[in-house]
Amino acid sequence: MAAKIGIIMGSISDLNVMNEAKTFLIEQGIDFEIEIVSAHRTPEKMLDYARNAANKGLKVIIAAAGGAAHLPGMVAASTILPVIGVPIKSSNSIDGWDSVLSILQMPGGVPVATVALNGAKNAAILAAQILATSDDAIATKLNQYKTDLIAKVAEMNSQLKNA
Amino acid sequence: MAAKIGIIMGSISDLNVMNEAKTFLIEQGIDFEIEIVSAHRTPEKMLDYARNAANKGLKVIIAAAGGAAHLPGMVAASTILPVIGVPIKSSNSIDGWDSVLSILQMPGGVPVATVALNGAKNAAILAAQILATSDDAIATKLNQYKTDLIAKVAEMNSQLKNA
Amino acid sequence: MAAKIGIIMGSISDLNVMNEAKTFLIEQGIDFEIEIVSAHRTPEKMLDYARNAANKGLKVIIAAAGGAAHLPGMVAASTILPVIGVPIKSSNSIDGWDSVLSILQMPGGVPVATVALNGAKNAAILAAQILATSDDAIATKLNQYKTDLIAKVAEMNSQLKNA
Amino acid sequence: MAAKIGIIMGSISDLNVMNEAKTFLIEQGIDFEIEIVSAHRTPEKMLDYARNAANKGLKVIIAAAGGAAHLPGMVAASTILPVIGVPIKSSNSIDGWDSVLSILQMPGGVPVATVALNGAKNAAILAAQILATSDDAIATKLNQYKTDLIAKVAEMNSQLKNA
Amino acid sequence: MAAKIGIIMGSISDLNVMNEAKTFLIEQGIDFEIEIVSAHRTPEKMLDYARNAANKGLKVIIAAAGGAAHLPGMVAASTILPVIGVPIKSSNSIDGWDSVLSILQMPGGVPVATVALNGAKNAAILAAQILATSDDAIATKLNQYKTDLIAKVAEMNSQLKNA
Amino acid sequence: MAAKIGIIMGSISDLNVMNEAKTFLIEQGIDFEIEIVSAHRTPEKMLDYARNAANKGLKVIIAAAGGAAHLPGMVAASTILPVIGVPIKSSNSIDGWDSVLSILQMPGGVPVATVALNGAKNAAILAAQILATSDDAIATKLNQYKTDLIAKVAEMNSQLKNA
Amino acid sequence: MAAKIGIIMGSISDLNVMNEAKTFLIEQGIDFEIEIVSAHRTPEKMLDYARNAANKGLKVIIAAAGGAAHLPGMVAASTILPVIGVPIKSSNSIDGWDSVLSILQMPGGVPVATVALNGAKNAAILAAQILATSDDAIATKLNQYKTDLIAKVAEMNSQLKNA
Amino acid sequence: MAAKIGIIMGSISDLNVMNEAKTFLIEQGIDFEIEIVSAHRTPEKMLDYARNAANKGLKVIIAAAGGAAHLPGMVAASTILPVIGVPIKSSNSIDGWDSVLSILQMPGGVPVATVALNGAKNAAILAAQILATSDDAIATKLNQYKTDLIAKVAEMNSQLKNA
Repeated sequence: MAAKIGIIMGSISDLNVMNEAKTFLIEQGIDFEIEIVSAHRTPEKMLDYARNAANKGLKVIIAAAGGAAHLPGMVAASTILPVIGVPIKSSNSIDGWDSVLSILQMPGGVPVATVALNGAKNAAILAAQILATSDDAIATKLNQYKTDLIAKVAEMNSQLKNA
Repeated sequence: MAAKIGIIMGSISDLNVMNEAKTFLIEQGIDFEIEIVSAHRTPEKMLDYARNAANKGLKVIIAAAGGAAHLPGMVAASTILPVIGVPIKSSNSIDGWDSVLSILQMPGGVPVATVALNGAKNAAILAAQILATSDDAIATKLNQYKTDLIAKVAEMNSQLKNA
Repeated sequence: MAAKIGIIMGSISDLNVMNEAKTFLIEQGIDFEIEIVSAHRTPEKMLDYARNAANKGLKVIIAAAGGAAHLPGMVAASTILPVIGVPIKSSNSIDGWDSVLSILQMPGGVPVATVALNGAKNAAILAAQILATSDDAIATKLNQYKTDLIAKVAEMNSQLKNA
Repeated sequence: MAAKIGIIMGSISDLNVMNEAKTFLIEQGIDFEIEIVSAHRTPEKMLDYARNAANKGLKVIIAAAGGAAHLPGMVAASTILPVIGVPIKSSNSIDGWDSVLSILQMPGGVPVATVALNGAKNAAILAAQILATSDDAIATKLNQYKTDLIAKVAEMNSQLKNA
Repeated sequence: MAAKIGIIMGSISDLNVMNEAKTFLIEQGIDFEIEIVSAHRTPEKMLDYARNAANKGLKVIIAAAGGAAHLPGMVAASTILPVIGVPIKSSNSIDGWDSVLSILQMPGGVPVATVALNGAKNAAILAAQILATSDDAIATKLNQYKTDLIAKVAEMNSQLKNA
Repeated sequence: MAAKIGIIMGSISDLNVMNEAKTFLIEQGIDFEIEIVSAHRTPEKMLDYARNAANKGLKVIIAAAGGAAHLPGMVAASTILPVIGVPIKSSNSIDGWDSVLSILQMPGGVPVATVALNGAKNAAILAAQILATSDDAIATKLNQYKTDLIAKVAEMNSQLKNA
Repeated sequence: MAAKIGIIMGSISDLNVMNEAKTFLIEQGIDFEIEIVSAHRTPEKMLDYARNAANKGLKVIIAAAGGAAHLPGMVAASTILPVIGVPIKSSNSIDGWDSVLSILQMPGGVPVATVALNGAKNAAILAAQILATSDDAIATKLNQYKTDLIAKVAEMNSQLKNA
Repeated sequence: MAAKIGIIMGSISDLNVMNEAKTFLIEQGIDFEIEIVSAHRTPEKMLDYARNAANKGLKVIIAAAGGAAHLPGMVAASTILPVIGVPIKSSNSIDGWDSVLSILQMPGGVPVATVALNGAKNAAILAAQILATSDDAIATKLNQYKTDLIAKVAEMNSQLKNA
């Protein structure tokens, strides 16, 4: 089956963070594709990616970038698919503030669904939630995932008692 | 037809900003419901709202709040629907930083799709984009909206020449 | 005797910081209970905890959380007990700013008594000070603690002379 | 009956904000005293105030200050009563950041219960909550106050429908 | 003669600030062209503008934008002409921090010459300085401009004496 | 041939960062000179450097400094050559904010072309871009450099596939 | 008698703030001179001012500037007189942060005695305190001034009672 | 001879930073005394220290503290001696911002001469500069020190050439 989620990132150095998104989607059995697409080094490829995304079957795009992070916003400019932005606290970032603000503060007309700094896992969950609005199988998995979160707190309480 | 988008906000004072979301959805002919739900004054009502949202047919929730803005994150804690958070620069906010950070920086497991400070219009567009992943009529409208943005820039260039 | 102070935290990873609160209360011989309660993973349990706190004899709640830290404020929403918030500089926090602002900036009506970033010890002292408003034995211990602080400065001056 | 809550502030210009605290306490029928005590202009008077506070029957102190706001922390240094700090966004403050940080970031040993920027009302509520830990009449009033908050949200929803 | 400086901005609302750049260039008799080019509304037009800039004779581009300000960086991605970025403190900006950081913090490989927040005049001067590296007439004018700055301080001292 | 680019920095400790500028210019075969010039330790030498720069054939100056970073702005005050400022995140800097703001926020009349924090490489590229406005050989090299950036993304995609 | 305090500022627009310094010195009967000296428009004059300051009898220099505020630090680089820096929240400043950081964060070797944002009055008091280290008449006046501060708080308490 | 400079700090942990001040004063042969004086642990001792400072012959006080750093301002409240504040980036500080703002932002009437974060050496130099306003021997040494700074830059240039 064709991937419904496209993960792109500005540099291979972002992969370390983005692996959390991969892991979540693999665990949940949700197909995705992943690629390096750089706003500043490959602007034409970026626009092509954005323009073709819907046609090749993608439903959601996750875009990660750090510093003056233009990738998520520029992709959102060229597609009507929901774009989830992951601000990366990369080495060339000022404590992550630049990454957060340059992804979050999009002008009226072109939204980016921004998640927390380095929030790759949440980007994957949010993408799954969006798919789940029209896919009951994923919805069921996400409900199970929410139940598992409760169990994890119970486990942590056991740890706490034994600490 | 039942509303697919639920807009909630912590206080009537947020309505001034959130009217931009209403306007967009009305213009696009997308049904929504709107309600005051306060995390800190009506915590039980808030959880009820979140738990029942999917059952009553909502597909996306837009939650707006300012200051220590807990509404979007707490609603996201109790539903698997995508929750879009709108940080409000209210009078009790420190230049909006508190609103932004307390909505954006959700822990792994519970994402909020955060938009710009006072970004009510973008919240509505993002909600429409999410619905459009399984609704071709809305997708068509959003593609038209994107084309209209290009026309607006052309108009502004006419203004510029006459300035 | 039943615990008068309840310590809760969003994750077992906060325990490292919160141990300072435990240590102080044990040293002063003040009973407390401690538990993992997560706003975002266990919202219902959190509200139950808050609603039942007064009935089971708690007088003060210390709530610690990091990032978009909603636990202290949401507990304060559901009890009239004083809630002391401890912002944690966790790994998913932006230098602690998010933790501080999302605990401190509560709207009018629902206060959280916020202490310094990672200020677990001060949270415990503040809880003891609150109990001491109606418990002379604790007041006596706190007065002794204040005198001991003076002695510590004297000690440091000895160290300084020998440095 | 002697006042149980002492409100102090660094300057008469803080009164504008602190009136919200007065109003709440008057509404709830809780006695308080109020005075200008300046850390930097009247340091001796400040220490005297702090040292005598418990003896004259005060149970809680609310201290408000802006800029390099030393009043709450210095009072807390000289009494074991709980001290609630209100950061004021005064004209000589940098957007309130100095007021917040110089009240909040107290060293281990000397806590200040900090509320939101300009959070005078919440300081008064917190003071009442502290008294309520040993005063059932105040507890009853605070429970009623919490119920009234729910009613206010209902009212706002009526407004919303008529908007 | 063909314009050597191209001024672009994301919205007509930026013109208010950018008029200072126009005024300087007109005063110095340096040709320029000016146009609305929006990164997020007209991404293709933006890339076209950048790719054609050198061919049509431009030597320097001044690009102004606010909020998540992607225009300067994206233009710099598609041309080897020096791009001067002007961060605009627009109404949708968080005190200008987003505008500054999303223009300044470009990754290695694609520089933007960033000037101060709302620094339209300095952008024009910098553009003239770049042209002056190979145009003695402009260099002469800029040397005169620097001398005039000294005269302005002398004038201000006269005002001061009469104040 | 005489150097056209002058690199100066406030301290030998900045060399670690500035080596990236050297490397780029050497790779591209562009002559430069490099020197320690301190605004605060050698103010007269600094002004001499700035005043003589154009006469000795320099076309662009790259000035790096950290903390209260006055070097770039003071050099720009005494020459009409374009001055590129590199904010250094030195050990005496507050997370780089002081370096960035004291270089970027120049008053109207005296621009500094500011690049990213520690953006030494981009400073060198920008200097080359300025030279390229009147030097076709450098322009050709810069176009090649841009093409190479695209190739690097392709390489990273190979790495990604094998990861 | 020759002035012992020199007040300089970067622009006539700073006079509005600096008048508070003038007023204090006039009230205390302390001689001063005042002049516009701009780091960026008149760098030579600035260095001359600094180099000659001690010779003409000045004991302390007060230097005010906003934005990338280089005047205080550059003057301190060229004299051994104590230099007091006043960060101005001018219209071209980012909420005053740039003014504060570019004056405060001087490198080891060249201190500037920085006062609060817009703290012109405190700059004048500090200058008087420095003179008072070797001038008993000024010391006596400053002791009186401190006593008057206490009286002002008493007055404010009268106002409070009548409020 | 009696010490003319008093160095105080809030905790022995500040000594690591303050040793730079000691080293400078010892090198210059200027007498000083050094002591731990804590605003929050020993408030009475602190006021005593401040009140007696002038009588025992001190001319300048250097006060270092971190976090909610009240020591410099509170000492300044109780003496007319110039007080130099050194903000310490201690472990309980939020990147030093709290230390800087709670020392710098003193209200009108009570100045603190603030130096850079961890700027202990500059505090010592500034103290020497203040003494030098009435002590020619120290002035001569400081002029020599300034000359030595120029020599250090020359040395660094030798290093640079050999790098």
